[in-house]
Amino acid sequence: MPEKDLNALFVDTLKDIYYAEKQIYKSLPKMAKAAQSDELRDAFDKHHDETEGHIERLEKVFELVGKPARGKKCDAIEGILEEGKEVMEEYEDTSALDAGLLAAAQAVEHYEISRYGTLKTWADKLGLKDAVKLLDQTLAEEKKTDDTLSKIATTAVNAEAA
Amino acid sequence: MPEKDLNALFVDTLKDIYYAEKQIYKSLPKMAKAAQSDELRDAFDKHHDETEGHIERLEKVFELVGKPARGKKCDAIEGILEEGKEVMEEYEDTSALDAGLLAAAQAVEHYEISRYGTLKTWADKLGLKDAVKLLDQTLAEEKKTDDTLSKIATTAVNAEAA
Repeated sequence: MPEKDLNALFVDTLKDIYYAEKQIYKSLPKMAKAAQSDELRDAFDKHHDETEGHIERLEKVFELVGKPARGKKCDAIEGILEEGKEVMEEYEDTSALDAGLLAAAQAVEHYEISRYGTLKTWADKLGLKDAVKLLDQTLAEEKKTDDTLSKIATTAVNAEAA
Repeated sequence: MPEKDLNALFVDTLKDIYYAEKQIYKSLPKMAKAAQSDELRDAFDKHHDETEGHIERLEKVFELVGKPARGKKCDAIEGILEEGKEVMEEYEDTSALDAGLLAAAQAVEHYEISRYGTLKTWADKLGLKDAVKLLDQTLAEEKKTDDTLSKIATTAVNAEAA
């Protein structure tokens, strides 16, 4: 058994977010298809492209620590996406669907923001400078996506739903 | 069947976070007990007290919309807390335990930040001024807790773990 130190925790958490990103990548086209407003659909499409880049960056981080890029079932993202699926089903063809999709997507973004923030802090402690850079790039994109979704939520979509 | 509009979505999401807060309230003493550093234990204890206030505020919001305060199983928080439990078990008695506890707690905070942000936006759209105020108070406390945890993560705990 390898020692259960910060290094091991870093790799475990890398596997967790790698699994999560792949699940998100699969979910985003479904959310885009369900979206009623063009603005929200475009935001999901754009984030789908970005997510591909996030997966590639994680593969580079795995390389930097000399581990194979492998996911590990992440209960958190499963639960978050399950809630999103429920909203899509329950609010299908209603005026509140886009609001529900936005809420689900922002819960996903915040999970990722917490994970990338944590991983970046640990990479810094472990002296993995190149990993810090990669993780920070993705963290910035996740925060930007969350901001975009917040803006959409306060303008077009809810005006329609209200 | 009541109409599936933004009002219904607001109440559904209120039930979701009400359930989540109660689960968090139960989990925090376990996390405090597991914490190795006094600083982290104190942060968990303090947040446990705050969480009691968050539950009470949610009950006031239920009152404002004329609905009984009732939770609804929240898959997201179940998944997030399950991950925290796994870390507690896998990293028990190791130098990385506090780092793992911090990561778990920050994932919880970010879930709450996304939910309260969403609820606040919707309360505003629905003209529920008093609810906006209550939700905003909790949102501010969740953000402050996340900042505190970030600070602990970059100082004491990881220095110990590295």
